[in-house]
Amino acid sequence: MQTLKVELGERSYPIYIGEGLLGQPELLAPHIAGRQVAIVTNETVGPLYLEQLSRALGAYSVMSVALPDGEAYKNWETLQLIFDALLTARHDRRTTIIALGGGVVGDMAGFAAACYQRGVDFIQVPTTLLSQVDSSVGGKTGINHPLGKNMVGAFYQPNAVVIDTASLKSLPERELSAGLAEVIKYGLICDEPFLGWLEDNVDALRAVDQAALTYAIKRSCEAKAEVVNADERETGVRATLNLGHTFGHAIETQMGYGVWLHGEAVAAGTVMALEMSMRLGWISQQARDRGIRLMQRAGLPVVPPADMTAEQFLQHMAVDKKVIDGRMRLVLLRHLGEAVVTDDYPTEVLQATLAADYRAIAASL
Amino acid sequence: MQTLKVELGERSYPIYIGEGLLGQPELLAPHIAGRQVAIVTNETVGPLYLEQLSRALGAYSVMSVALPDGEAYKNWETLQLIFDALLTARHDRRTTIIALGGGVVGDMAGFAAACYQRGVDFIQVPTTLLSQVDSSVGGKTGINHPLGKNMVGAFYQPNAVVIDTASLKSLPERELSAGLAEVIKYGLICDEPFLGWLEDNVDALRAVDQAALTYAIKRSCEAKAEVVNADERETGVRATLNLGHTFGHAIETQMGYGVWLHGEAVAAGTVMALEMSMRLGWISQQARDRGIRLMQRAGLPVVPPADMTAEQFLQHMAVDKKVIDGRMRLVLLRHLGEAVVTDDYPTEVLQATLAADYRAIAASL
Repeated sequence: MQTLKVELGERSYPIYIGEGLLGQPELLAPHIAGRQVAIVTNETVGPLYLEQLSRALGAYSVMSVALPDGEAYKNWETLQLIFDALLTARHDRRTTIIALGGGVVGDMAGFAAACYQRGVDFIQVPTTLLSQVDSSVGGKTGINHPLGKNMVGAFYQPNAVVIDTASLKSLPERELSAGLAEVIKYGLICDEPFLGWLEDNVDALRAVDQAALTYAIKRSCEAKAEVVNADERETGVRATLNLGHTFGHAIETQMGYGVWLHGEAVAAGTVMALEMSMRLGWISQQARDRGIRLMQRAGLPVVPPADMTAEQFLQHMAVDKKVIDGRMRLVLLRHLGEAVVTDDYPTEVLQATLAADYRAIAASL
Repeated sequence: MQTLKVELGERSYPIYIGEGLLGQPELLAPHIAGRQVAIVTNETVGPLYLEQLSRALGAYSVMSVALPDGEAYKNWETLQLIFDALLTARHDRRTTIIALGGGVVGDMAGFAAACYQRGVDFIQVPTTLLSQVDSSVGGKTGINHPLGKNMVGAFYQPNAVVIDTASLKSLPERELSAGLAEVIKYGLICDEPFLGWLEDNVDALRAVDQAALTYAIKRSCEAKAEVVNADERETGVRATLNLGHTFGHAIETQMGYGVWLHGEAVAAGTVMALEMSMRLGWISQQARDRGIRLMQRAGLPVVPPADMTAEQFLQHMAVDKKVIDGRMRLVLLRHLGEAVVTDDYPTEVLQATLAADYRAIAASL
């Protein structure tokens, strides 16, 4: 087992990473203050791991809530199911909410913990690679609004994060790849040596090698913690974590949520950010191609949807949260391993990036 | 104008108190970072003060949302009206939300500010005496759930609070009295000299004397700030602010919300807490009677509903948030001017307190 401490003053917390951690009560006990525990999971993950986790919590009064599975249910109506269950079971303000599942479960359970009686204890048990490397650090919680994703939420830190790498054995291959998109992102934005490690180990990661996954998850969480520590409320450098996300969100919106997985859209969006960084003269063609090739080997798409126009991209990008007072800020690479957030670029370079022939680029590698 | 600084480290903020402050743009400008402002008010307060406030904000892009008036609308559906308006008008994360109204408007606008894009700037402009002395300090925001009051919310601090005492000229007399219940509470729990000042000035306060109100509001906010500073997240001494509230909530619940005003229920609840403190031998009968007499002179009820039984009290008190792991904690007075939170009392004293003849006590004064 690896342990990583996320340093946030009085809100610091540990991330435990390793195989089989779900069944280890001694990891959870120090982080549960009261007698009541509410496990929030979904209809897919619950049948796989709820019994094991509940057994490890035998010393507590445990209740569980299984939400419907999917981004489409990340809304107030579903959140209400959690509040209803907590109040019906008379959970008081010393209760602990445990999120067992992927990013949607973590976002909703975390937001419920942030709001229930104005804040109760919260433990993350992420079961997808994406949520393990993305939601474990940063404290972002929330729900979608009919007019925008993640528009209602809170910054709320967990008391602990328990990552059982064994849970990735049951994860569909496509979702494992989607998680790798975010892992690769950390290499690109702030850790060039890790990028080299990933080139050597991407096959082992796709084969669900437990030691390789433990290392990759730990390194990703470390990288994110470094960035977030420097900027907890996302006013500056934290935005570099959104490499590929502005282009990617546009793809997700255009295609309809769920058609492309988030990680898949981020992969193709990251390729576009690499292309634009190259066109600005900030990275070499060789560097761009290293990034694209790694995404390909991770089983990820590197070409945006064939029929998506530059105008459609611009339209969706304009409503993204990264727009401040009307200026469109983008995350780009100064070098491999160093990202910047900037709205200082010629519009023609953005236009050329949107118009580039990614199919031809991918075919050439 | 009086200015009070609430010290909370990087979340410190000023409270401005005085006559005619609503029309002073220079008070607001330093606390608005972006170009967008959203005023949240209700259908009663909006027609009285929205135009004046909007005029003072002429330099910004101002939008307003008028919520239906009343505690019955302090729920998710009404909160959604705020999010809908913000998203429709494309307010970004640099927007500032201003609450113009009483406690319900402040709680909802504050919770919306806490959650919109995971937190935006927030200014309180409370227009009732209760909200001026209660909501200005402490950062409590939230909404009701069908199964309990204030069960969903956040601790969220405003950037500034602007209290225009002139707004109390339009406040119904009954609501002014309800606000005085909380003012008197501060004297009882932590400031015996202020209690003496109130005995000298209660008539001026009821006559809406601007100087007397400015002093009483400032002293109340100071008292609350001292308590809250010591305990921002309500784990200990902050609970003393709930003097009279556990008994009072039981009255509100039994009668149905809105039949008794919150301050009226707190007044009668405070009388019960005084009675219990006397029965425990902590305060004298003379001290109890001083408190009761002051409530009477402020125009407040000092007798619980005639047909409300001890069992009904206990039943409603048991679901109060102040219950931790099943023990019922009460706020009582050690002395006039010093409150304690305790679950260490003989059950018989609580029973005797619930059974006491408050009508006879009140008649004897």
